[in-house]
Amino acid sequence: MMQHSELRESVCQINKEIGRTGLAMLTWGNASGVDRDAGVVAIKPSGIDYESLQPSNIVLLSLDSGEKIDGEGRPSSDTPTHLHLYRHFESVGGIIHTHSHYGTVWAQACRKIPCFGTTHADSFYGAIPITRMLTEEEVDHDYELNTGVVIVECFADQDLNPGEIPGVVCAGHAPFAWGATPAKALENALVLEEVARMALHSLQVNPGLQAIPGYLLDKHYLRKHGENAYYGQPE
Amino acid sequence: MMQHSELRESVCQINKEIGRTGLAMLTWGNASGVDRDAGVVAIKPSGIDYESLQPSNIVLLSLDSGEKIDGEGRPSSDTPTHLHLYRHFESVGGIIHTHSHYGTVWAQACRKIPCFGTTHADSFYGAIPITRMLTEEEVDHDYELNTGVVIVECFADQDLNPGEIPGVVCAGHAPFAWGATPAKALENALVLEEVARMALHSLQVNPGLQAIPGYLLDKHYLRKHGENAYYGQPE
Amino acid sequence: MMQHSELRESVCQINKEIGRTGLAMLTWGNASGVDRDAGVVAIKPSGIDYESLQPSNIVLLSLDSGEKIDGEGRPSSDTPTHLHLYRHFESVGGIIHTHSHYGTVWAQACRKIPCFGTTHADSFYGAIPITRMLTEEEVDHDYELNTGVVIVECFADQDLNPGEIPGVVCAGHAPFAWGATPAKALENALVLEEVARMALHSLQVNPGLQAIPGYLLDKHYLRKHGENAYYGQPE
Amino acid sequence: MMQHSELRESVCQINKEIGRTGLAMLTWGNASGVDRDAGVVAIKPSGIDYESLQPSNIVLLSLDSGEKIDGEGRPSSDTPTHLHLYRHFESVGGIIHTHSHYGTVWAQACRKIPCFGTTHADSFYGAIPITRMLTEEEVDHDYELNTGVVIVECFADQDLNPGEIPGVVCAGHAPFAWGATPAKALENALVLEEVARMALHSLQVNPGLQAIPGYLLDKHYLRKHGENAYYGQPE
Repeated sequence: MMQHSELRESVCQINKEIGRTGLAMLTWGNASGVDRDAGVVAIKPSGIDYESLQPSNIVLLSLDSGEKIDGEGRPSSDTPTHLHLYRHFESVGGIIHTHSHYGTVWAQACRKIPCFGTTHADSFYGAIPITRMLTEEEVDHDYELNTGVVIVECFADQDLNPGEIPGVVCAGHAPFAWGATPAKALENALVLEEVARMALHSLQVNPGLQAIPGYLLDKHYLRKHGENAYYGQPE
Repeated sequence: MMQHSELRESVCQINKEIGRTGLAMLTWGNASGVDRDAGVVAIKPSGIDYESLQPSNIVLLSLDSGEKIDGEGRPSSDTPTHLHLYRHFESVGGIIHTHSHYGTVWAQACRKIPCFGTTHADSFYGAIPITRMLTEEEVDHDYELNTGVVIVECFADQDLNPGEIPGVVCAGHAPFAWGATPAKALENALVLEEVARMALHSLQVNPGLQAIPGYLLDKHYLRKHGENAYYGQPE
Repeated sequence: MMQHSELRESVCQINKEIGRTGLAMLTWGNASGVDRDAGVVAIKPSGIDYESLQPSNIVLLSLDSGEKIDGEGRPSSDTPTHLHLYRHFESVGGIIHTHSHYGTVWAQACRKIPCFGTTHADSFYGAIPITRMLTEEEVDHDYELNTGVVIVECFADQDLNPGEIPGVVCAGHAPFAWGATPAKALENALVLEEVARMALHSLQVNPGLQAIPGYLLDKHYLRKHGENAYYGQPE
Repeated sequence: MMQHSELRESVCQINKEIGRTGLAMLTWGNASGVDRDAGVVAIKPSGIDYESLQPSNIVLLSLDSGEKIDGEGRPSSDTPTHLHLYRHFESVGGIIHTHSHYGTVWAQACRKIPCFGTTHADSFYGAIPITRMLTEEEVDHDYELNTGVVIVECFADQDLNPGEIPGVVCAGHAPFAWGATPAKALENALVLEEVARMALHSLQVNPGLQAIPGYLLDKHYLRKHGENAYYGQPE
């Protein structure tokens, strides 16, 4: 019997959703999940297409050491980024990285995605931040780890809560999104892509557009996520 | 036997069309219908996905009091907006609210959608108006009701007829559309989305573009909707 | 046995392609064909959706008088435009009118579509012209006929050959395209839509862009359409 | 038994992918492959639609002389371009030419596609170059051959390596892409289309955007293509 079969199944399924929802073409994306009690991270193998992916292909790694516990192939080349985020963002249970079109456009443009409406505010409690560009030293040594380092630095410097802003765009690169579970990370990745697309087009209609008032941001984020949330069905 | 089964079926089907036509991703939209003789409003439950929705899930409410008549789940969180519109726009039999992409873009940009062509004029007798932004007070207390209040205010202030302009974009938020039936509301929501997309691209080709002449607007709206309408087959 | 069954079948099929290819949503488009020997025009009935359309629904009209020869429903409300074009553009055997997105955008923007590349030049021997806006008088009396009148006027004034430029965008309205057969009209409508989309995006990359040199236009148009055409297989 | 049946199968399949992936509408694209040991080029016949294409329709030509070895139809009208590229770019095993939307947009705009991010850098080691416009003389005589001549000239003048930059946009026309095999050429054509689309939208978010730093370009290109590549699974 497979180790951690439930985690593998969930991570496999969310990786397949990356292809099915069009978030990534070719193999431009990967998803992972963590079992914090067991100290195990499950992640997509590198360069495998989504359709042929099976739970048995998912690679298991130690959250602490990063060493491989099980799996035949190489883990995603972005694994050190995922591990760094799990170690520093403790509420995160699943992470998705894709080169989804509009998220990547804002990343390439080196611009944060402002909160222009309630669609954004329903899932992200403020602008989606942009990291700084990595230095030559950071790219040449431990590039993928340093991608995680600048994300954590970005949230620390701006005093942002990764539980409230579940995503980021990395300068010159592409977005990362996360959530309490791999499924929630996928949802946030889909929302990030759509609000990135809405933000570009909103600026085209009104180039001087400003973010929505703070009280409207509060209302929409908190009616879905606060203590007194009233959206959806009681659980 | 279910109460108001015909109304439930129709409202259920139109909610499913929101997902099928791509007007909304995830659960970003809801449709309702009213039986004015019975004083009953039927609306989507909150946070349920479109594919699994069944007529039995549709929530029934009193048009007068807003109290639940039948249904297990919570009604859509936007229910107070729907109720307010039914109470003030008497010709309306169905309402759709979605975060459809281009309608939301104009809402976020805080701009009315000008009538740039006959595609628009065939369904909307003039520009699709933009509401004002809600105040902090209006957002903090009875937010969803006040969304309806500013829509009704917008039509009253500009002396617009909701029977002739079956939709609106709400500042910082998204569009609402309506019609004599839920099916007609869906059609108007689809038209609003497409003319919003056409209007953005038309301005990109010609940034100084003005609305079409009033006589062309009259011709197209009235050949489909006036007393002497001659589009389609006689009924 | 149905009269003119071959013409009906062909016109029915091309109307269905309008929906299937996405050229038009709802019922925003119609196609017709002519049998010049018989003096008969076949056209879509008004307001019928594409999926349910059958050859028996196609309406037959006299090319000379415009009177109905056969068919139960009203012909498309745009019938007088089609008839006028058949009477003045003698090489035309099929006509398509749709509110396809990018063609309509250029029509609304009141701009001709310049020839920015060989994709355009392969099918249209120069810019796709824009008509003038109809006057109030022309809109109020015989509007659909006058839509045909300004198209014919546009080609006459600019000395354009409808056999070489098989389409036009009508100011404030939408495109018409045509060809030797209904199938060829459909192909030209699809090309018009795609080159309209390419032209907008090309101007966004290079706002000062000019049309391609005349010798490149000649080469591409004539290698497919001239006496010495060498594209495709010999017939 | 068919000659070169494996090459035919592969070239047939990749041509079908042009239609299936949406890289080209109608018959706006063609793919070829070469067997350098046998000195044989296999290419799509001219004007045949992708769905009905069979391996037996693929035309075989001599790499040296360009003369037809086998096949009933005319080869693609772009054959002289393909042959010229195979003769001058020795690492190339497959070539694709399409009028894919965003690649064609940059070609029409007469602009190279800058490297704005890692998506681009993963497959193209720098900007995707733009050829110069052909002269009237070059268009009037041996046009398709001269299209190949200006591509080769463009790479020579800028000292670019076609093994590292597997594609180009041709001024006023459309893109060509290539690779070690027809399948790899298809992948590069898909990447070219997506990075062309990303580049346009990135400039819309940030009109002053510059290419990514050289050290980031090096890192991404070389982690997939250099001697020490570590992306994907070991072969």
